[in-house]
Amino acid sequence: MRERIEDFLDRTERVQLLAAPTPLHALSGFSEYKDVQAYIKRDDMTGLGPGGNKVRSLEYILGEAVSIGCKKILAAGPVQSNLCTLTAAACARLGLECELVHNGEEPEKKEGNLLLNGLLGTVSHFLGSCDSSERNAYTEELAASYEKAGIPSYVVRNGATTGRGALGYTAAVREMKRQCEEMQIHNMTIFAPGGNGGVAAGLIYGNEMLGRPFRIVIISVEDDRDTLIRHIEKTIHETEKITGITMEAAVEETAEISDLYRGAGWGMDTRESKEEILRFSRQEGIFIENIYNSKVVVGMKDWIRKGKAKGAVCYLHTGGFGSLFAQY
Amino acid sequence: MRERIEDFLDRTERVQLLAAPTPLHALSGFSEYKDVQAYIKRDDMTGLGPGGNKVRSLEYILGEAVSIGCKKILAAGPVQSNLCTLTAAACARLGLECELVHNGEEPEKKEGNLLLNGLLGTVSHFLGSCDSSERNAYTEELAASYEKAGIPSYVVRNGATTGRGALGYTAAVREMKRQCEEMQIHNMTIFAPGGNGGVAAGLIYGNEMLGRPFRIVIISVEDDRDTLIRHIEKTIHETEKITGITMEAAVEETAEISDLYRGAGWGMDTRESKEEILRFSRQEGIFIENIYNSKVVVGMKDWIRKGKAKGAVCYLHTGGFGSLFAQY
Repeated sequence: MRERIEDFLDRTERVQLLAAPTPLHALSGFSEYKDVQAYIKRDDMTGLGPGGNKVRSLEYILGEAVSIGCKKILAAGPVQSNLCTLTAAACARLGLECELVHNGEEPEKKEGNLLLNGLLGTVSHFLGSCDSSERNAYTEELAASYEKAGIPSYVVRNGATTGRGALGYTAAVREMKRQCEEMQIHNMTIFAPGGNGGVAAGLIYGNEMLGRPFRIVIISVEDDRDTLIRHIEKTIHETEKITGITMEAAVEETAEISDLYRGAGWGMDTRESKEEILRFSRQEGIFIENIYNSKVVVGMKDWIRKGKAKGAVCYLHTGGFGSLFAQY
Repeated sequence: MRERIEDFLDRTERVQLLAAPTPLHALSGFSEYKDVQAYIKRDDMTGLGPGGNKVRSLEYILGEAVSIGCKKILAAGPVQSNLCTLTAAACARLGLECELVHNGEEPEKKEGNLLLNGLLGTVSHFLGSCDSSERNAYTEELAASYEKAGIPSYVVRNGATTGRGALGYTAAVREMKRQCEEMQIHNMTIFAPGGNGGVAAGLIYGNEMLGRPFRIVIISVEDDRDTLIRHIEKTIHETEKITGITMEAAVEETAEISDLYRGAGWGMDTRESKEEILRFSRQEGIFIENIYNSKVVVGMKDWIRKGKAKGAVCYLHTGGFGSLFAQY
């Protein structure tokens, strides 16, 4: 008999970083839509460092690192990377050493996440102008040099979008399923962002493994639909190798994936996304940002307006409050 | 028979703004203190706007405003006031109009809370250089002029440190009592900041009304001990008038109040508070700021070191993440 995903999640290596469960509560600005009860899942409120979705991935990634005896953790990203700051905050809590590798120059004045990294006392390497593959190669070499010197080191790869990282959102499906049972919310449609597909992979895989408690809609904020599906598939395959439990259905059969709201791609405004940042904060008193948040809300509202989503709908807020200050 | 505080809290006018309960979880950086189990109450994670403690006060203050039919809410503070931004966010969620009155010039570039107020679309009045009493007088006149024009208006007074506002932390004592029962934490000592005494008044009053489930220690971040006690007493008297339930004991008998860690007063660094911002983030992966947070942690650790607090101790994190970015 094959293992149940719940049993796998309970036995696999994990460190606790999350103040779980994150709140699931009603939204107030959807009263014009009569057939809809709108909710928000507050993964902006994960309670570590500046918060956000990647805390969930880091629970499983750093769980592995600790279990194999690594004391030095390396992560890479652009200078304002949320993943880098969250990795530094997680290492602080866990008593691990952290080094960050950035493509980009070291600015004289440290702002936003760089300021936070400074408070956390993280060692940071600024490589100047280079692309992400050069940066990642440097990070791997750095890890190898520590290994050679007898310091067991672990690299948080691909912005935490890995097979282990996706377990964070597999576990989140279980968390949301329990919350919906307690709150008597039925047949909820979850709208989540699709960037490099990490959140999406975890959600889709978890939803399949737990018997499809939810309908999942992924709104691309970066790539076209086919590219995003390939990203998601790749990560799910990695997860399957770790859990030993394969998902029978294809990604497109188990989730709806739209690239209609991404505009010119990652980080590029659309008229609607710019408007939605204002509209959403003015209706809910909750801030959303422009890279991963606003396009998802635009998509969700469009689906509701067109009658494609009814009943309980939920916006998965993946965080990014800090980056808002750099967007205005 | 006099009414129980629980019954009063359940029946009094309140709007729901909080994602309650906020997390109560263990701290990891206190292992050197053998007789201590250290916790943190995450009132930085109240889930409205930028979060923080004043969301609790606004639930009861705006509850009254709504119950008497006010649609226009006015709040006053310096340009980076957290209370102002939270009031604006609360009004957004509740569908109320909000106007803010600031002493200070309107800066060309809107940063921090002013940027957030702009997203929220709040009408803001910048009075230029004037003191808080002039600013408050202007706010009252503005409210009176709206009233005259037939628009029922409500002023959030004294940074939400009022008799009604203190009900927020009276209710928080109930929330924490339930959490401690669930988590089987006994005889916890809570360390909280004393600024103008709003949080302290609510905590002390709530703790007395609920049979002293906690030991309360207030660390002044602003005034000398006697001044702070007078502030707390004044607010508790206001609360008593609202609830009709008087506290028998004197403030000094029911809580320990220290002014040893405030340095030169509000917003002024001490060597220890500056160090603690770094030490705390590097041990916990949670950020604290310098006005209301770090001095309380310094005080708590000093009490622990001196053996004045043992067993379960809890730092009440009142928020202020946003202001950190203006402190470095």
